[in-house]
Amino acid sequence: MALLQQQNYETLNEVSAAKLAKKLHLFHEDAELTSSEIGDGNLNLVFRVKDQLSGKSVIIKQALPYAKVVGESWPLTLKRAKIEADALKLFRELAPEFVPEVYFSDETFAITVMEDLSHLSIARTGLIQGEEYPLISKHLGKYLAKTLFLTSDFGLEPSDKKELVQKFINPELCKITEDLVFTDPFFDSETNSFEEELIDEVKKLWSDEKVKLETALLKQSFLTEAESLLHGDLHTGSIFASKTETKVIDPEFAFYGPAGFDLGQVIANLLFQAIANEGKQEGIFSHIRTFWKTFTDEYSSLWTNSNKEPFSKTDGYLEKVLKKYFKDMIGFAGCELIRRTIGLAHVADLDGIDDQSKRIHAKIKTLNLGKKLIVSRERIRNIDELISNIKDNLK
Amino acid sequence: MALLQQQNYETLNEVSAAKLAKKLHLFHEDAELTSSEIGDGNLNLVFRVKDQLSGKSVIIKQALPYAKVVGESWPLTLKRAKIEADALKLFRELAPEFVPEVYFSDETFAITVMEDLSHLSIARTGLIQGEEYPLISKHLGKYLAKTLFLTSDFGLEPSDKKELVQKFINPELCKITEDLVFTDPFFDSETNSFEEELIDEVKKLWSDEKVKLETALLKQSFLTEAESLLHGDLHTGSIFASKTETKVIDPEFAFYGPAGFDLGQVIANLLFQAIANEGKQEGIFSHIRTFWKTFTDEYSSLWTNSNKEPFSKTDGYLEKVLKKYFKDMIGFAGCELIRRTIGLAHVADLDGIDDQSKRIHAKIKTLNLGKKLIVSRERIRNIDELISNIKDNLK
Repeated sequence: MALLQQQNYETLNEVSAAKLAKKLHLFHEDAELTSSEIGDGNLNLVFRVKDQLSGKSVIIKQALPYAKVVGESWPLTLKRAKIEADALKLFRELAPEFVPEVYFSDETFAITVMEDLSHLSIARTGLIQGEEYPLISKHLGKYLAKTLFLTSDFGLEPSDKKELVQKFINPELCKITEDLVFTDPFFDSETNSFEEELIDEVKKLWSDEKVKLETALLKQSFLTEAESLLHGDLHTGSIFASKTETKVIDPEFAFYGPAGFDLGQVIANLLFQAIANEGKQEGIFSHIRTFWKTFTDEYSSLWTNSNKEPFSKTDGYLEKVLKKYFKDMIGFAGCELIRRTIGLAHVADLDGIDDQSKRIHAKIKTLNLGKKLIVSRERIRNIDELISNIKDNLK
Repeated sequence: MALLQQQNYETLNEVSAAKLAKKLHLFHEDAELTSSEIGDGNLNLVFRVKDQLSGKSVIIKQALPYAKVVGESWPLTLKRAKIEADALKLFRELAPEFVPEVYFSDETFAITVMEDLSHLSIARTGLIQGEEYPLISKHLGKYLAKTLFLTSDFGLEPSDKKELVQKFINPELCKITEDLVFTDPFFDSETNSFEEELIDEVKKLWSDEKVKLETALLKQSFLTEAESLLHGDLHTGSIFASKTETKVIDPEFAFYGPAGFDLGQVIANLLFQAIANEGKQEGIFSHIRTFWKTFTDEYSSLWTNSNKEPFSKTDGYLEKVLKKYFKDMIGFAGCELIRRTIGLAHVADLDGIDDQSKRIHAKIKTLNLGKKLIVSRERIRNIDELISNIKDNLK
C-alpha cells in the first residue's frame, strides 16, 4: 500500500489508523482526529477514527492473520479481507440501503475503510436487551431477495456469474462452516462445547442416523450448489439495526452457495430469541413470516422483471425455485440451531440465560427443534406450516 | 513458448509441428519425421508427427481461435487448450488406463502434445460401421467412477476441490452447452436444425411446459451443481476404442458440474445406435446395464475405501448419492437425445440413415424418448426399469 509506504502486512494501531484515514483524504485537512480500537478482537482489529470538529467518523477494519476464538493456533489467510471488501462493494451495489459504503480497501494490509454505523446497534445485542427492530425482517427479506437473485444465473449472464464464482472461491472460511456447522456437532469432536447436562441429548443426536443423513445432504448442498453469492455468516451479530435502519456487515464468509443457507441463518438466529424468551415468540414468528413474505414478493418481482433465463416464463419454474429455497432454508436453520447449542461457537441469546435449569431446558428445545427442521424440511409446505411446526416443538 | 522462439500465438503447420516435436526431444535425434494434419478442422488443428525409422508417433493438437462449425463468427478463447491439457493430465492421474498421456502443453500457443492413439478408432464411427467394442461400457463405467469420485468432495479435501473448481471455471465452453443442449432446442432458435417433416413434433416440444420445466431444472443443475470435474462432452466422438482398449479424449469442456451429465451423455450416445438400428438394441441395452453396474460397483468401492467425508458411513448416504446420479443421468440423457436431433450439432448415427422416412421415424422416436426420460427421471427406480422404459418407447 503506497499510502503506508511499505510493502508488507503489519497490524495497524490507533495512531497509524488515524494517519491512514488522513492520507485517504476522508477528512478535512484541519480535522482533529481521534482513533480507538473498538473490535471484539476475534478475527479482526476495528478502529473508529473520528474528527472531533465535524463529528464525522469512519471505520477501519483490519484482518488478523489468525482467529483468536481458538487461540493463535488457527491461522487464517488475510485473503478474507479482500473477499469481505469485494463482497461489501458488490452487495452495496445490489442493495445499497442495507450495506455500508466502502471508501477504500487494500489487499496487502487486509484493510477495509468503511462507513461508520455506530448510530446503530448489533441486532443480537439489542434483541437480547429487549430492543425492538420493527423493520428488520422486511429489510432482511429485501436484502436477500436482491443479493441472492442478482448474483444468480437468473440475474446475471451465466458467464458473468462464473467470473464471480471464481473470484469468491473461499476455501478457508468455508472450511470453518463445513466443520463447525455441518460436521463437528454431529460427531464426538474436540471442538464441541456444551453443558454436561446435555450429554444424553447430544448422544441421541450422534446416533440418530436419519438426522445425520439429512445433515450430510445439507452439507453436500453447501459444498456443491453454487446458486448465489452468499453472505455466508448472516446471524444477528452480523447485522446493525435501529428502529428504522438495517445494515448487513462482515461478509468475510462470502462464497457461491445455496441461497437457503443465508435465509436459514436469519430465521435460526431470530428463533434463538423465541426460545430464550417465551414472551417474545409471537413477535419473532411475525418477523419470520414477514421475512419470508417480503423475500418471496421481492424475489418474484425481480424474477418477472429482470430475469436473464429464457426458461423463466415456463409454468411453475419460479414456484419450484422458491420451494427449493424454502426447503433448504428450513434445513440450514436446523443445522444452525444445533451447532450454536453444542458446537464451538455459541450465541449469547442462549448462553446468557442465567438460570441453569432454564438454560438447559432451552438448549434441549433448541436441539430438538433443530433435528425436527432438518428431517421434516421436505414435508413443510409453507410458512404457516413452518411456524406451526416450530410452535409445536417449543411447547 | 521458448521452444518456438516467439511470444504470440500463431497456427502451426506440418513443418513447424514436426520441428516442435523434435525440439521437445520426443524422438531420437536421427529420427526421420513426417507430419500430417489429420483433424476434422472443427475447433482445432491436429497433427500426427511420425518417425519413419522407429514407427513412433505423437499427436500435436492446437486450438483455433474460432469454432469452424458455425464459421469464423464464433470466436472462442484459446484458454480451452489449457483447460483440455490440464484436464487430460488430471484424468490421466486418476484413471491412467483410459486417458492418453500428455507430453507437453503450452498455453500461449494453445498446444497439447500427446500420445498417438491412431491404432484405435473413434467409437462413434466404429459403431456406425458395425464394429463391436465389448469392453467399452465396462471401461467407461470405471473411468467415470474414478474421475467423478476422485474429484468430488468425497474423494478430495473440500479445500483442494475448491482449487480445482477455480482452475476449471470454463465460461465459454459451458455457454455452448447451456445454449445448444439446454436452451435452443426447446425454443424456436436460429441455431436449431431439423428436417421440415419434424416441425409438428418440434412444435409439440416447444409448447410442452412440463418438459420445459424439467429441462429448466436440469439446466439449473448444470449451471450450479459443482459436484465433480466433468469431461463435459463425453459422447462417442470423444472416445477412442478397440476390442480391448478405451481412451477418453478431448476434455476441453471440462468444468465442475453434476456427475450425472457425463453419465447421461454416455448412455444417450449409446442409445443413438439402438435407435438407428433395431438389431443392435439388445447389445446396446446390455452395454448400458454394464456401464451403470460397473460405475456403481467401482464408485461404491471408492466410497468405502477412499472417502474423506466424515458422514460417508452414515446409513443410506451412498445410496442417496447414487440415486441422485441415476436420476440426473436419465434427465441429461434425455436432453442429449433431443439436442442431437433438432439442435445445431447432430450425430452421424441418425443423420446417416439414408432412407428418409426411416430417418424421420428414428428422429421422432429419439425426440419422444428424450422427453420421456426428462419427465420421468424421478420415477425410474433402477437400471432395469430404465431399460424397460426405453424399450417401450422404441417399439
